[in-house]
Formats: sequence, C-alpha cells, structure tokens
Amino acid sequence: MAVSGAGLEGIIAAESSICFIDGQAGILSYQGFNIHTLAENATFEEVIYLLWNGRLPVQAELDELKAALVKYRPIPAPVVEFLKSVPDGQPMHVLRTAVSMLSIHDPEANDMSPEANVRKAQKLMAQTATIATSFDRLRNKKPILEGDPKLGFAANFLYTLTENRPDEVVERAFDIALTLHADHELNASTFAGRVTAATLSDIYSAVTAAIGALKGPLHGGANEDVIRFLLQVDANTDAAVQQVREKLSKKEKVAGFGHRVYRTEDPRATHLRELSEEIGKRTGHLDLYLASKEVESYIKETKKLNANVDFYSASTYYSLGIPIDLFTPIFAVSRMSGWTAHILEQYKNNRLIRPRADYTGKPDGQPWVPINQR
Amino acid sequence: MAVSGAGLEGIIAAESSICFIDGQAGILSYQGFNIHTLAENATFEEVIYLLWNGRLPVQAELDELKAALVKYRPIPAPVVEFLKSVPDGQPMHVLRTAVSMLSIHDPEANDMSPEANVRKAQKLMAQTATIATSFDRLRNKKPILEGDPKLGFAANFLYTLTENRPDEVVERAFDIALTLHADHELNASTFAGRVTAATLSDIYSAVTAAIGALKGPLHGGANEDVIRFLLQVDANTDAAVQQVREKLSKKEKVAGFGHRVYRTEDPRATHLRELSEEIGKRTGHLDLYLASKEVESYIKETKKLNANVDFYSASTYYSLGIPIDLFTPIFAVSRMSGWTAHILEQYKNNRLIRPRADYTGKPDGQPWVPINQR
Repeated sequence: MAVSGAGLEGIIAAESSICFIDGQAGILSYQGFNIHTLAENATFEEVIYLLWNGRLPVQAELDELKAALVKYRPIPAPVVEFLKSVPDGQPMHVLRTAVSMLSIHDPEANDMSPEANVRKAQKLMAQTATIATSFDRLRNKKPILEGDPKLGFAANFLYTLTENRPDEVVERAFDIALTLHADHELNASTFAGRVTAATLSDIYSAVTAAIGALKGPLHGGANEDVIRFLLQVDANTDAAVQQVREKLSKKEKVAGFGHRVYRTEDPRATHLRELSEEIGKRTGHLDLYLASKEVESYIKETKKLNANVDFYSASTYYSLGIPIDLFTPIFAVSRMSGWTAHILEQYKNNRLIRPRADYTGKPDGQPWVPINQR
Repeated sequence: MAVSGAGLEGIIAAESSICFIDGQAGILSYQGFNIHTLAENATFEEVIYLLWNGRLPVQAELDELKAALVKYRPIPAPVVEFLKSVPDGQPMHVLRTAVSMLSIHDPEANDMSPEANVRKAQKLMAQTATIATSFDRLRNKKPILEGDPKLGFAANFLYTLTENRPDEVVERAFDIALTLHADHELNASTFAGRVTAATLSDIYSAVTAAIGALKGPLHGGANEDVIRFLLQVDANTDAAVQQVREKLSKKEKVAGFGHRVYRTEDPRATHLRELSEEIGKRTGHLDLYLASKEVESYIKETKKLNANVDFYSASTYYSLGIPIDLFTPIFAVSRMSGWTAHILEQYKNNRLIRPRADYTGKPDGQPWVPINQR
C-alpha cells in the first residue's frame, strides 16, 4: 500500500474540473476563471452557474437560475417550527440539523436523476440562506421576512437578515465575499461531502456532512475566532500585537493565518482586505481593519505566515453588521455552491472513496480471557 | 504530488490501532481480537468497551459502561416531538436529522475535553438505538417503550422495537450481528466521520456525516437491496438464480457481493450465514436462507465473487422480524461504536485531512466576456 503523508497532504483523491489552486504561485480559479477576474466582474449567481456548468451563463440561463433561486427560497413549515423551537441553539448545529431535515420534506430527496439533483442543488442554495436568516430573526423574536423577488442572492440575504435593503456598495461587497468563499477544491468540508456522495448517498446527506466539517475551528470556524480576538482587545492595535506576540511565544496558533495549500498570499485575502477597509470606513469599524493590518504585518514579519481567507472576512462581516456566530453559517451559504458542484461532479463519474489505515495496534490473535480472570 | 488510485484505493489516510483487516487472508480483528473470537465470546457491550479502550473490560468497568448505556437511553423531548412529526420519513433521513438534533439539547456538545467526548460517545450509542426504535413505534401509532434497565443493549433494542423480550437464542443472534457490524477500519462512513472530526468539529457533527455516508447503496444501504431482491422472487431459489444470471449478463451489480478490501470470504459473512440459517429455521424463514445459499454458490462459481457482510445480514434481520427500512439504521446503531472509537482516536492525535484534486478543467486565465456578448 502507498503510504501517504499524514492528513493526505499532497495526495490526489479525485479528478475535478471545478477549482484550480497553485499554492506556490498563489493562483485560485473556478472552472478556469481566475478569482480576481470573478471578484471584479461576476455576480454570485453567475459564479454558482459557472461552478455547476463549467461556463458562464447567457442571459436567459442566468435569468432561469435566478428565478429558481427565488422560487425555492421558502422553507417547509416543519423546518420553520424547528427553528422556532431552538432559539438558544448554536447556529452551526441548527443549520446542520435544518438542512438535514429539508430532505424529509422533499419528495425528490432520493431521486438520483441528474435533473432532480440539479433542482435539489438549487433548493439547497436558496434554502440554506433562508434557514440562516430565519433562525437569526426568530431567536431575536422578530418575524421571518419573506424576501424580495427583485433582490439578488446577496442583497436578499442581507435584507431578510437585517430588514434593511443594502445600498449598492454594501450589496456588492457581500456579493464579492460570497464569490470568494464559493469553492476551494478538496477542502475538508467539500471532501467530507464527496466521500459521502461517493457511496451514492443523496445530496442532502452529502451537504449535511460538509456543514458538520465546516463547523470545526480548523476550517470554517476560524473567522469567528478572529473577530472574537479583535473585539477582546477592543480593536486596539498595540494590545492586539502584544497578545499575538504572547500567543506565538507560547507556540499557540493565531486564527486566520497560514494555509495547508498556499505558500504565498491567499488571493482571496487580497480582496477581503480591501472590503474590510471599505466597509469599515462606511460603518465606523475602521479600527478593526487597522488593528487587523498591524497584526498581519507583525505575523508576516516574524513568522512569514500570510493572512488567509478567514482573517479579513472577520472584520468585513462584523462591519456589515452580521452577528458573529453567523459567520460560519454564511461561509456555509456561500460554500454550498462549491459543495453541490463537487457532489454533482462526483455522481457523474463515481467511485467509492475508501482509503486504508496504517495499523498500529496489537497483533491479531489476542487470546480471549473470561471476564472473571481479567 | 503523489497520484493515488481512484477512490484512494490502497492509500493510507491515517494511523489507527482500532481495526486490522487483511483482505488477502480474510482476517478482521478489533484491537487485536479476531472477529471469530469476538463473535464466539464477547457481548456487544464488551466490544464497545474494547473498541474505545483497546482492551477488554474487567467486571466493574463493564458494569459502569452498561449502566451509562442504560442511563442515557431516553432522548430529549424535542427529538421525540420531531420523530412524531415525520411518520412517513425515510428512516435514514430521520435518523441523520435526529442524531444531529441531539447536539442542540446536549450542553456538552461543543466541550472537546476527552471526558466529555467519552460521555457523548456513550450517549450516542444509547440514543441512536432509542431513536431507531422510537421512530418505528411512533410511525406505527404505538407508544414509545421506556426500555428495561435489566436488558442488555441487544435485547433492549429488540424489546423496545417489538414489545417482545427476545429469548436467549434470538438475543445472542442479534448481539452477534451488532458485533459483526461494529467496525471496519476506514470504510466510507467512518472515513467521512474522521474527515469531519479532523477539523476539530464536534462528535455529533462527525457521526452525522457518517450516517449520511452509510445511507448510500454502495455502503450500508446494500442489505436492504438484498432482501428486496429475495422477496421480489418470493425466496424462490430458481427464480433468484435466474434473475441473478440476467443481472450479470447485463453487467449489473448484485447487491451483497464483492468488497473493496476482501479477496476471500468476508469473515463476517461466515457468522451471518449461520445466523441466517438458525434464525430462519426458528421463525419460518428458512426459504430466504436457502435461496441466499444458491445465489451465493452461483455467483461464487460464475464470477468468483464472495458474499459480503450485507448478504446474509439481510435474511437474518428479516427473520428477526425487523422492518426492511430499519436494516440500515440498525447498521448505524452498531457502527456507532466504531465511528465513535475512530473519532475519539482522531481527536487524540489530530491532523486536518485535506487531500488534493487532479485538475482536469480549463486553464486558469479564461477571459471575462460581458453577458450580452456571450
């Protein structure tokens, strides 16, 4: 058997045409479109189409997708009842459970035809967003907002969360943030989803697995850790750098830095840094951006570690007025596009994903000893 | 980057002392104890202890574990309400959702201390069984049975499912079936659980992922396919062999045969074949066993494929009076022991599991074309 590095580092687990990463050169592209090209030009709906179909949509195709993503926004009544019943639930536990529950109320849940799977991917995109915003409304004793069919994905998310229709700058900033988080090749959550899909289990099972993996602090949970750190030092630059120095001297990790794949700047961080500054200025949270900047310089200088996607998304989301414990659910709302793309790709050319373990235990043949003689 | 076979076949993804498989020699052992030794001597509770602790328990340790597995049997009231609300739900969708929901009602859900994780593993063992039996009672408009503290895991499962206390032979048969399904190294569901746990996400997230993966027809769903096939031909031996011949001539797969790892008889099948015959005789379902036997001989002769764990568990479970769509949930109840063992092991020496993809898509740098010019 081939022995891999721990954690499958550098091991190829699947063929994929969805996402290209060159960690040495700092290149990320979706279906051949560089992340900078997409951040500058694409809407999130175009990115969803691109990830699923491998090319950009013409107008009629985009209109059709947008109409589906509006049509599927409402969630089944039993899922609303569930959200009402767990106002104190940790949001990622609630999201994982609610998305899993969607399957029970979808008559197509176990239909494995490509057409049904695309429809389910559309439903999952729309309804994961509705679950996240509805949960936050309900726990704050506010009525669920129905959504505005005239608003696109990003704007409707912010509207149904906050009851405020975002202006163009804020809408565009959030739309770009969704695009930047949309996919990242075989990251741990996507991989958990593909391992699940590769048993030919349904797409709800697969994305539920992915949400569970994203929850971990070594994955999607990191941006919540970043903002908690910045707020704990009251966005004071000196205090932030001082605390980072202490953490590093104790060999503790600083959330938001370093990446399994990138050896350069994470190309997503480039855009999120700009968004953090822009939105921070507009909403009175520039101090978070400025403290982030100093922490970044200090860690880059002393540890040669680069900020990753989580570092500046923390201050960006906070500046947008998003509750901290929704940062990871929002990551899930965005990454749902990549998860579903990878799951659909896995179904198209499936093979069970079943590695082996390096056995380190006792040799086979241990003798049985009756319990009163142990 | 190292290129692996498709599906990570033969690639080592983790170190583990839990389960040893020699697919060429047909050897399976848990923590060094051969599966035949365990099937002949151990109770399922001893196997749970063994998987978690790497050695057999002394009496006091076994008593303590059994007491915990009794104490934790009741499930939170909101989970009961949920089960009541989905009488027509597909059982694996319901089980995955209910197990995910347990986290919301467990104040320790996000406590990553080893002590809390062991307690959660005990709760998951006990409560997954309660969810499966309660769901079946409720959908049949029968009240949930509270369970009998004097009954062990296997007997209490059958009692709370059927309202009948099993005799010794039936109890022992089901206990052995649970032991045989308890673990199988890095099978797809366990691997999905470990990938999830390796982000340092909580144990509920990790087993929820595993349940989703087990649901697939290439994994835990296979024993349901086996029994549906046998019943469809009315357990008629000639008709069964005839249909198998037709399937094979159309290059279709026959559920319950072949295995990614074993090249010999699956050592679990040896015991399940005996159980199928023994229980079949007692409950008037020997015809299922006899038809299975002929199908097995035919496929072995013509295709050199061996029966796997799913093939004889199908007729065994059916002969025990278990509803067909609970076969995979029961697989989950048993495999929960192995899943939790692997997740606890992953936490002890964690590294993010993050492979790479072999990129087959368009080159980076595709030019942006405005939508009206596409």
